[in-house]
Amino acid sequence: MIVEPSPTETHRLVRAARCAGKSVGCVPTMGALHAGHVSLIERARKECDFVVGTIFVNPTQFGPNEDFSKYPRTLESDLEMCREAGADLVFTPQTSSMYAPLAQTIVRVDRLASVLEGAHRPGHFDGVSTVVTKLFNITEPDRAYFGQKDFQQQLIIRQMVEDLNHPVEIITCPIIRESDGLAMSSRNRYLSPDERQRAGRLSQALRKAKQLAQETSLAPAEISAAMIDMLRSVEGIDLQYAVITNGRTLELLTEPTEPAVALIAAKVGTTRLIDNEILHFSLRQ
Amino acid sequence: MIVEPSPTETHRLVRAARCAGKSVGCVPTMGALHAGHVSLIERARKECDFVVGTIFVNPTQFGPNEDFSKYPRTLESDLEMCREAGADLVFTPQTSSMYAPLAQTIVRVDRLASVLEGAHRPGHFDGVSTVVTKLFNITEPDRAYFGQKDFQQQLIIRQMVEDLNHPVEIITCPIIRESDGLAMSSRNRYLSPDERQRAGRLSQALRKAKQLAQETSLAPAEISAAMIDMLRSVEGIDLQYAVITNGRTLELLTEPTEPAVALIAAKVGTTRLIDNEILHFSLRQ
Repeated sequence: MIVEPSPTETHRLVRAARCAGKSVGCVPTMGALHAGHVSLIERARKECDFVVGTIFVNPTQFGPNEDFSKYPRTLESDLEMCREAGADLVFTPQTSSMYAPLAQTIVRVDRLASVLEGAHRPGHFDGVSTVVTKLFNITEPDRAYFGQKDFQQQLIIRQMVEDLNHPVEIITCPIIRESDGLAMSSRNRYLSPDERQRAGRLSQALRKAKQLAQETSLAPAEISAAMIDMLRSVEGIDLQYAVITNGRTLELLTEPTEPAVALIAAKVGTTRLIDNEILHFSLRQ
Repeated sequence: MIVEPSPTETHRLVRAARCAGKSVGCVPTMGALHAGHVSLIERARKECDFVVGTIFVNPTQFGPNEDFSKYPRTLESDLEMCREAGADLVFTPQTSSMYAPLAQTIVRVDRLASVLEGAHRPGHFDGVSTVVTKLFNITEPDRAYFGQKDFQQQLIIRQMVEDLNHPVEIITCPIIRESDGLAMSSRNRYLSPDERQRAGRLSQALRKAKQLAQETSLAPAEISAAMIDMLRSVEGIDLQYAVITNGRTLELLTEPTEPAVALIAAKVGTTRLIDNEILHFSLRQ
């Protein structure tokens, strides 16, 4: 496995693989890898001839009061996990080689990036769509792999790829969860033991929503009210949103139509967590 | 020469050429081709194995009060000129295949796009940088050719390519002029005979600026004052700006430093024209 910090050299290495007829899969990450990331690399390994992981804590997707400086950096163990999962190349750029002093170009997805996470984290998705465009141009993948855990992110990247004619297929992979249901996240390591226990309630509320959608004829608003009830009652959980939206447009659902997704964001102590579940309305017309 | 309206098929055809080991040159145009465009295609023909022209009157780069609906459409003669200049493929998309109803992604270059043309034509460069990103993703060129006539445009595209790591080299080609100096432009055909004659004064003012820079020790502000004097006195010319700026940042020059460019925009009758000249300060320290 090659570890390469230079954008130019990474591009050259991937081009060489392409020219040798290999299909290219890319797994963009911010490092602090866990089993969720590993599942993306393993999926890419199954489907592509040449697998590129990227590890870059992108400053432009953090707000001024967010956790950029304390975001976990665990490069050595990250590289070991990439190796074990079968990556051929890991791109590990420095910030200075990704953003020149005069850099001034932003890729902005409009409506999808303005709600939910976009409303709570102004500028976040501009940073994401811009850096992903850069990573796609550097690694020129046939397929790129994202986790469903960041549901809105993968939706925005799909929209961007379609709108800008990026020649890449976006593959969204299932959420990997801890035994109590907590969605794997690099930010889980911020949680104290007490917070860690409470955090399991988020996925419980989502499972409840999934069950209500499947087994009752409750309206989406009633199901989200049930999620909110479950979470408002827990001390130490500061719920930011718990909604049921169209799974493509992120518009709030008023009727039980699909695609549908339940989305939650909450602060547990000082740690902000997000999670989601795809819903199926089995009793709908 | 293949004429292809489909983005997907165009991408497939260019990929096939790439996979056969050919280098790809792209010449993006809005049609209404003239000798300036032809010089771009001929240059691409000299430098690349496979030459793609694109003809697309991009609605998103026109303001609400601009000339989108009356912009000249001359597809048959355009294709003939592409053929004669040696293009292998001409991409001629419909608007509906370039912009889906839910399209919502914009590529925005910030500072460079906010001044001069950007200030006079709000949103114009967002439309340009977005459509050029799309055309680059569809045609995946090694080199793309732009005219120096649209000086700010080629600068913005260079900045965008650098900021987003597009794997393409931008080649800027010299302005092609009529015998009286008027820069070739698709919009020149809007001019009445009378306006056409007056329009020659723009390039005269730029030649004057070039000469003053080369042969005197006048400051940039004095040289631009001389241009303004020459143009203010002409009836039927509504000068919008005549400035001397840094040739990379477009900041107004206060000292005779290079790179330097003199830039003019003016309405001649109802037709808005732009032109420019690179300046060299021969007597500077």
